[in-house]
Amino acid sequence: MKIIRKSDPVNLRRTVDQGTVEQRKIVQSIIQDVKENGDQAVLSYTERFDGVKLVDYKVTSEEFEEAYDSLDGEYVQILKEAADNIRAFHEKQSTKSWFDTQSNGTILGQKITPIDAAGVYVPGGTAAYPSSVFMNIIPAQVAGVERIVMVTPPGKDGKVPAGVLLSAHILGVEDVYKVGGAQAVAALAYGTESIQAVDKITGPGNVFVALAKREVFGDVDIDMIAGPSEIAVLADDTAEAAEVAGDLLSQAEHDARSSSVLVTTSSSLAEQVQSEVEKQLADLPREEIARKSVEDYGMIILCETWDEAVDTINEIAPEHLEIITEDPFQELGKIKHAGAIFLGPYSSEPVGDYFAGPNHVLPTNGTARFSSPLNVDDFVKKSSVISYSAQAMKENADKIARFARLEGLEAHARAVEIRKERWKS
Amino acid sequence: MKIIRKSDPVNLRRTVDQGTVEQRKIVQSIIQDVKENGDQAVLSYTERFDGVKLVDYKVTSEEFEEAYDSLDGEYVQILKEAADNIRAFHEKQSTKSWFDTQSNGTILGQKITPIDAAGVYVPGGTAAYPSSVFMNIIPAQVAGVERIVMVTPPGKDGKVPAGVLLSAHILGVEDVYKVGGAQAVAALAYGTESIQAVDKITGPGNVFVALAKREVFGDVDIDMIAGPSEIAVLADDTAEAAEVAGDLLSQAEHDARSSSVLVTTSSSLAEQVQSEVEKQLADLPREEIARKSVEDYGMIILCETWDEAVDTINEIAPEHLEIITEDPFQELGKIKHAGAIFLGPYSSEPVGDYFAGPNHVLPTNGTARFSSPLNVDDFVKKSSVISYSAQAMKENADKIARFARLEGLEAHARAVEIRKERWKS
Repeated sequence: MKIIRKSDPVNLRRTVDQGTVEQRKIVQSIIQDVKENGDQAVLSYTERFDGVKLVDYKVTSEEFEEAYDSLDGEYVQILKEAADNIRAFHEKQSTKSWFDTQSNGTILGQKITPIDAAGVYVPGGTAAYPSSVFMNIIPAQVAGVERIVMVTPPGKDGKVPAGVLLSAHILGVEDVYKVGGAQAVAALAYGTESIQAVDKITGPGNVFVALAKREVFGDVDIDMIAGPSEIAVLADDTAEAAEVAGDLLSQAEHDARSSSVLVTTSSSLAEQVQSEVEKQLADLPREEIARKSVEDYGMIILCETWDEAVDTINEIAPEHLEIITEDPFQELGKIKHAGAIFLGPYSSEPVGDYFAGPNHVLPTNGTARFSSPLNVDDFVKKSSVISYSAQAMKENADKIARFARLEGLEAHARAVEIRKERWKS
Repeated sequence: MKIIRKSDPVNLRRTVDQGTVEQRKIVQSIIQDVKENGDQAVLSYTERFDGVKLVDYKVTSEEFEEAYDSLDGEYVQILKEAADNIRAFHEKQSTKSWFDTQSNGTILGQKITPIDAAGVYVPGGTAAYPSSVFMNIIPAQVAGVERIVMVTPPGKDGKVPAGVLLSAHILGVEDVYKVGGAQAVAALAYGTESIQAVDKITGPGNVFVALAKREVFGDVDIDMIAGPSEIAVLADDTAEAAEVAGDLLSQAEHDARSSSVLVTTSSSLAEQVQSEVEKQLADLPREEIARKSVEDYGMIILCETWDEAVDTINEIAPEHLEIITEDPFQELGKIKHAGAIFLGPYSSEPVGDYFAGPNHVLPTNGTARFSSPLNVDDFVKKSSVISYSAQAMKENADKIARFARLEGLEAHARAVEIRKERWKS
């Protein structure tokens, strides 16, 4: 892992993969096909892309049971405890409808209503994570979403990983379909004979899934377009190099394009972490991926001053930020942009991936500048409420009509003025 | 305005204008050009599309003063009172950072931070509304956004409507640029020599603006893609037909594609509103637009039962909903999807457009199913905060490591386990 100076020319901001023109065309045609031909199109893409010919693609109760039986009781217990922690955290996020009364009788407010139906995309292959099932579904459940549909691509054997099915089962979600890619996104957005359309689609996926989400955006809502994992560690001399290195590698092992960055003012920590990364890399099962990630996107940024270090973090706007310093809470107010902030030596990033409670679906590629972790608010919407009183109308009708006329909207003015007839009679 | 039965075949759901392939290509090339050539590209598109050759396109303090002087004091007073009302409502929307302590020493929380910079698009021509300036900028200000940039296309005379400039001036926003279309969106998203890039772009515009927002989405955040205005009125026999007709026409006059719908169980109200609409249409200045809107998208839906009427409203998921019934508050809990809900006979829709306080930037095209009015939350983002305690790590390290290994992520497991070394020494 290279050590660089803040003053060295380096691009800290990564950009979103917008896909190639060709990929966008493919995705558009898949969506159109699924819109027109429903299940038939879905099944034919599944055969083509996943290499398996399915007849019915809804997961059956037998498949759920099989998944449950294939995993040991201790594992099931850990999953349940994690789900409880995640639920407890998200319950604290819930917001309430509110209203405000005015002495003239007017009431203004904001009504919170859950969306009717949410669709969750769970990637296949080695990225089929039970924790992703929890992190996408639990906020929707806490929000009060009545219908939750999960889609995930089948393996060549036509099956879905047991851990993924078990996680859905633990949460009581049984509307699970074996379909992935752009065809899954299209099915969720527009519906087919088997899948009833939803109002919002969340969950990560490959470039085709990301492009499909972008295409259907507007007809349904989507969460952010997810990029490769990122971690930045802001540390001083009090940090343990081996722990910092371990945390950096926990993200590097995700994907060769993942990014792991240490930002520090301590040259001794920089050097120790550099050698610890090398040491720990050597016997990782996913060494190849992690090494490529570290070489291409990993760096240790050595700053002259602590302010420069903090600025660097805000410039990166990392998905995960660890602050390992003598008094990490003191730094919290300086951080403007980060998806999740882990404070102190025991807040290792994987603690947040699985267990602590906050969501692990976080903004990547610097989008923490304007995006949030997936949360309960993502599954509700607000409606403004306006109950204007007779007295308020009496007092303000002329002003509102005047304003409307200045915008050239006569019918607006008249709609208000016609209420004045009530006082004439 | 035609009267139909709920059972008649009618499509209540409108869809988003995704633009033609040709329009998308044009937008992509404009964005690329602005990215590469900055102000030079911006000014050349302004000459081409707006028919005016500008050298500097930032609005000067002289232009602000000229706008201020051109409008009478009473109008300025009304604008200021409206701005105060809008600010008061949005201040109630503000959410707070929170944290939750556990007895083992762990702290979990959610930190709220405003985005750094917001860009507001204000349309030109007859749709250049002072109220839009307020509705987009005030929530950003209340959220604490430090830098707010406004863009709006110049007229052929190189000027911006006085009301629009005055509104920005009242709010203290002076970073205003005379540029519109896709080139304005590109400039806000990627920056030019004159305009510093922002993190989120809001505000309505034509199809080119909407497509450009869709293109830059991900690199920056955007608000929803806005469609033509909509109003639905849910009314019973207690409603005044002339008032209902006036409110329907207030939306019809916006755009020939606007939609105005009355949903009722009262056939006498249906017939009275039908004839009132015809009567009021006759002498509207914007009669042509309003008539076309009423003919193409207007309807009176006569329902058999009240439940059917309520279901119809939820199916439409209207931008604006008026409930004019004997006890409108009783209906509020039945409404699942609506951007803004106006209760009772004095809550005429234009009251909300200008003056009451809630935002008039609302979800259209049925997107109230999953979207909210523009609000303070749109200009902040959340960061999860995790401070895991030594005790929590002691208790849970093995479980977290086990979970990680079951997902095949060994480096995650080791990052947690390495903390156990602390208790060995």
